[in-house]
Amino acid sequence: MSSGTGAGTGLVSVSASVSLDGFIAGPEGSGFEHLFAWYEGGDRTFPSTHPEIPFHLSGADHDYLTAAMARMGVLVVGRRLFDITNGWDGVHPLDKPVVVMTHRTPRDWVERYPDAPFEFVPTGIHDAVAAAHDLAGGLDVGLNAGEVASQGIAAGLVDEVILDLVPVLLGGGTRFFDAIGTTPVVLDGPEATQGHRVTHLRYTVRRDRA
Amino acid sequence: MSSGTGAGTGLVSVSASVSLDGFIAGPEGSGFEHLFAWYEGGDRTFPSTHPEIPFHLSGADHDYLTAAMARMGVLVVGRRLFDITNGWDGVHPLDKPVVVMTHRTPRDWVERYPDAPFEFVPTGIHDAVAAAHDLAGGLDVGLNAGEVASQGIAAGLVDEVILDLVPVLLGGGTRFFDAIGTTPVVLDGPEATQGHRVTHLRYTVRRDRA
Repeated sequence: MSSGTGAGTGLVSVSASVSLDGFIAGPEGSGFEHLFAWYEGGDRTFPSTHPEIPFHLSGADHDYLTAAMARMGVLVVGRRLFDITNGWDGVHPLDKPVVVMTHRTPRDWVERYPDAPFEFVPTGIHDAVAAAHDLAGGLDVGLNAGEVASQGIAAGLVDEVILDLVPVLLGGGTRFFDAIGTTPVVLDGPEATQGHRVTHLRYTVRRDRA
Repeated sequence: MSSGTGAGTGLVSVSASVSLDGFIAGPEGSGFEHLFAWYEGGDRTFPSTHPEIPFHLSGADHDYLTAAMARMGVLVVGRRLFDITNGWDGVHPLDKPVVVMTHRTPRDWVERYPDAPFEFVPTGIHDAVAAAHDLAGGLDVGLNAGEVASQGIAAGLVDEVILDLVPVLLGGGTRFFDAIGTTPVVLDGPEATQGHRVTHLRYTVRRDRA
């Protein structure tokens, strides 16, 4: 962790909208109308670089997301999400630089979006997080839920786990946590914020873990 | 649902202490020192029929558990938990009647504990819940997390889902929810209570579900 120079403190966090049964996407990519209902839960507009991905939030969710994004410097995502979104055409909706964990840099994409603040790291989670810290300027690093977050937790790199817990059971799909190993990871918290059809729960990983 | 005659209202609920990654038991039955830390989180004693299973709770957890148990009439459990505990030697720690879902009534056990308020139902979740309602006298019916709860949810029999959410990642083990089908189940809530190393989150299943 680098020392903080902005609103963030150089922490590494994982966060996602997640169902009560632990899914960040339902079967065959379903369920997003539930998981992201809070993005459309009010009349407070939150800036999006992509007009097709708007945020109209409740007051509580707007305050929560504003604070979360002020802390956030860089996002780390996996190749799968990058491919699904075509790298958000070079601009992440939250207007943050992005580190992509991938075995192979997508040369075509880099040529098409030469100014995109994206970095491709082929050498694993430790190097990806280190690259993100370098880009983050003391702000926090956010690991995408799923495989990236699970690798980060398994490697002991994660300081905060944030569940945006949504009142739905999806019954299947993509899990927030996967293959983090069997060692218990003990946390403290949460700091809780009730939003519109979401409960934001922010936990801190205990460093003297069992 | 029968109409309520006591503190409960004849609702069917599922509840369990659960890790942030959705496990009610860790790998090979580990993790209980984390999942049930809140049972030993303070100095308020809660009655237990089994001196070896004491409850020493924080004030918030004591108030929460007192209210929950006042509503609760009957518990429904699976045969596996019954076997592991030897049917709690005929008296559940929370001093409630128990309905056991099982293909075969354990005759030896019934002969050894003839006065135990246990009923064995071989004909599935609908009959087990109906038997529990009959025994509950208008109080609520609690389904044990795991297979019983998942069958109850899949059958549309569950009114409330209660997560006693514990700040630990266990990485594997027995999941709270399993095989509930792929239909989204939409809930409302939660009613939240912060305890000692546990966040109690009580959700209501929405009946006009999608």
